Amino acid sequence: MNLPAPKPEQQNPSAVPAAAAAGRSLDTHLRRYAARTAGMTASEIRALFAVASRPEVVSLAGGMPYLAALPLETLSADVAQLLATEGQTALQYGSAQGIPALREQICQIMALEGISAHPDDVTVTVGSQSGLDMVTRIFCDPGDVVVAEAPSYVGALGTFTAYQAEVVHVPLDDEGLIPAELERTLSALAAAGRRVKFLYTIPNFHNPAGVTLAVHRRAEVLEICARHGVLVVEDNPYGMLGFDGQTYPALRSMESENVVYLGSFSKTFAPGLRVGWALAPHAVREKLVLAAESATLCPPTFTQAVVSRYLAQHDWMGQIKTYREVYRERRDAMIGALEAHLPAGCRWTRPDGGFYVWLTVPEGIDTKAMLPRAVTQRVAFVPGTAFFGDGTGNSQLRLSFCYPTPERIREGVRRLATVLEGELELISTFGQVVRRQPTGPQSPSPDTA
Amino acid sequence: MNLPAPKPEQQNPSAVPAAAAAGRSLDTHLRRYAARTAGMTASEIRALFAVASRPEVVSLAGGMPYLAALPLETLSADVAQLLATEGQTALQYGSAQGIPALREQICQIMALEGISAHPDDVTVTVGSQSGLDMVTRIFCDPGDVVVAEAPSYVGALGTFTAYQAEVVHVPLDDEGLIPAELERTLSALAAAGRRVKFLYTIPNFHNPAGVTLAVHRRAEVLEICARHGVLVVEDNPYGMLGFDGQTYPALRSMESENVVYLGSFSKTFAPGLRVGWALAPHAVREKLVLAAESATLCPPTFTQAVVSRYLAQHDWMGQIKTYREVYRERRDAMIGALEAHLPAGCRWTRPDGGFYVWLTVPEGIDTKAMLPRAVTQRVAFVPGTAFFGDGTGNSQLRLSFCYPTPERIREGVRRLATVLEGELELISTFGQVVRRQPTGPQSPSPDTA
Repeated sequence: MNLPAPKPEQQNPSAVPAAAAAGRSLDTHLRRYAARTAGMTASEIRALFAVASRPEVVSLAGGMPYLAALPLETLSADVAQLLATEGQTALQYGSAQGIPALREQICQIMALEGISAHPDDVTVTVGSQSGLDMVTRIFCDPGDVVVAEAPSYVGALGTFTAYQAEVVHVPLDDEGLIPAELERTLSALAAAGRRVKFLYTIPNFHNPAGVTLAVHRRAEVLEICARHGVLVVEDNPYGMLGFDGQTYPALRSMESENVVYLGSFSKTFAPGLRVGWALAPHAVREKLVLAAESATLCPPTFTQAVVSRYLAQHDWMGQIKTYREVYRERRDAMIGALEAHLPAGCRWTRPDGGFYVWLTVPEGIDTKAMLPRAVTQRVAFVPGTAFFGDGTGNSQLRLSFCYPTPERIREGVRRLATVLEGELELISTFGQVVRRQPTGPQSPSPDTA
Repeated sequence: MNLPAPKPEQQNPSAVPAAAAAGRSLDTHLRRYAARTAGMTASEIRALFAVASRPEVVSLAGGMPYLAALPLETLSADVAQLLATEGQTALQYGSAQGIPALREQICQIMALEGISAHPDDVTVTVGSQSGLDMVTRIFCDPGDVVVAEAPSYVGALGTFTAYQAEVVHVPLDDEGLIPAELERTLSALAAAGRRVKFLYTIPNFHNPAGVTLAVHRRAEVLEICARHGVLVVEDNPYGMLGFDGQTYPALRSMESENVVYLGSFSKTFAPGLRVGWALAPHAVREKLVLAAESATLCPPTFTQAVVSRYLAQHDWMGQIKTYREVYRERRDAMIGALEAHLPAGCRWTRPDGGFYVWLTVPEGIDTKAMLPRAVTQRVAFVPGTAFFGDGTGNSQLRLSFCYPTPERIREGVRRLATVLEGELELISTFGQVVRRQPTGPQSPSPDTA
């Protein structure tokens, strides 16, 4: 692969040599950083994603929604009217909790998943990532434990790390988080005297695993957490994107006092607006708003107003139906191609919603070590290690089908199959490839790559 | 004053009694919070600001820019075109550092204050508040010291508190921060073995003090901080709003390796977009981007694109000139009214830019205790205590002239004069009013009230 070589003479006076860029030396501020900053390191795969964004590479790595499906012309007219008639309000500071009209509309959306909530308990956030950051900020001291699925969302792991919380994983299977494993893990942590602050879970169309928590497991997960005195943080960006139009009862619909629910318009409308929300028990909501105020004063009024007007004036459910159809076709293309092309020994999940397939490769292949070779063959994915806080995941990888066309997806999977066959050939010739040291999550930012 | 009384029967099932709302009891999650969350308490003056937002009250409290001066019709057409032609990009995820075109434009703006910078070293933030949050996140461990002017920006104090940093104030005078006092304070802190992470300073048209750091003091402040190994965080939201069109050389223009510069479009364009930036030494910038990624993934692409297009297609310098003229007229109205109406013994600053006048009241008057009486007389301000981390400031208050019309400003100052005279009469009749216990900053959110 041809990665751009560093120039011997940097033209940019601010640019520094690669060693300094990696934070290893030459940083005169090193002794000043907070302890938490030691955990903030750029991923070694980040540079690869810059290469992977070239048009000749089929990226099955990113989690970007397919915005060509949006009605941009009518949206444009709407936003123009918003600015012309309500610009003085829409461009002004707002409350840290978010604009009231939008919080009411958010309650109507959550009702579709069985949630009964009052707008007073909703806080609008700068994407649900910011909701996650605020929840972690108010609950986690250094050394506290967050329990999460194995694997879990890379962006969440980055946030937990930024607050020096430790992630302990609980296995999942095709029906999502395994209650018996959750029970076993929480008991072991209690016996070890660890403070577990919350379970972080993505019940629907999991990122990266592609599975959904079975309905019959939901009450059990809630009961186990309540009994252990552990809060449940339910992250649900994909819940409306079930390919057959199915929705599942939210954990929050079954239990209101021990659940913080995080929602987002990034996947059902547009991520560049950065509008998400947190629904929390009243006392927790108060802390969230104070935390949000110190972080950003208020979420952007303008993008909130854009979302509110979109919900009021558009057939937003119809738009979600369009998205579902687009993504179902792409899921079908990916699953079909995996079945047609992948070598024996590969296993993958079959999502009925969302953006992702989770692939387990044959014994001996290291997906992180394989990535540079895959990018050389013009296909990109996210290695499984990104989704674990403990350095495991070398035998897995995430494939996303949200952004490329079905034809590109098929071509990408064909290329991936070639790469995998090459790896298997190497192994049969030379024996198992030496694994790299596991390094855990390092903000590879694959969801925006 | 008629504050709305709590209803005996709450209709909203989520609503809780006032004691719980104040976080004092009934919160079943209390034992779960992080240590930092103990410092997050709602200000007792917050409820007053809800009352102060009624139209019959002249609010001299808020820091809202006067957006009626914006060209909303043409802006509306521009944003419509942006969405119609570039909507798929403008509504998509972006990089955590911000869009490159905007970072280049930001460098051109900073050049107006003598700053030479490369776009690689700029990070776009969700308002400069988020820049401040990220800087504090990467530098401050609990117990670290941040040195700030006395008084200082209330939102900054809230952020430092959220990271459990301690604020130590350094006095200012009509020429801004006093170098000899800075030297004395840093020496005393060093002698006491305290870790000082940075000086937080607002050199131009200070919030709340209204003063500007004299040019002849700037090199001295930089030299003192460098000698003590203390970073300088230069917060400059008002720098372009000098009423005579004057700008001052940024601290960052005189020293690049020991200064983090924070800028904002909130006061020169519109705050509801939440677009600000941080210019930092290269190694620090890398940490900032990683911190920002874990906080929000990326700043809103859409509002960045709106600002970038505005800068490219509008006479944004002409717009700033319009703002300057509006605010100069209001400053004149306020200073004139203060001179005409305020009782003897009051002193105030005379800003030549920005939004604020800092008023010192006669001995014996407690501005925080006075606020409810002022609101009853239909005028609001922010008590001085909000701007100190140590509970002082009872003899001071902040008046803002940015939002109300000159006529309303004059009426507000007349009402304030009546309130002050009433206080003085009480004191001469009954002796000094008993002071409340100082409580320090408590997120009163006056800048958005």
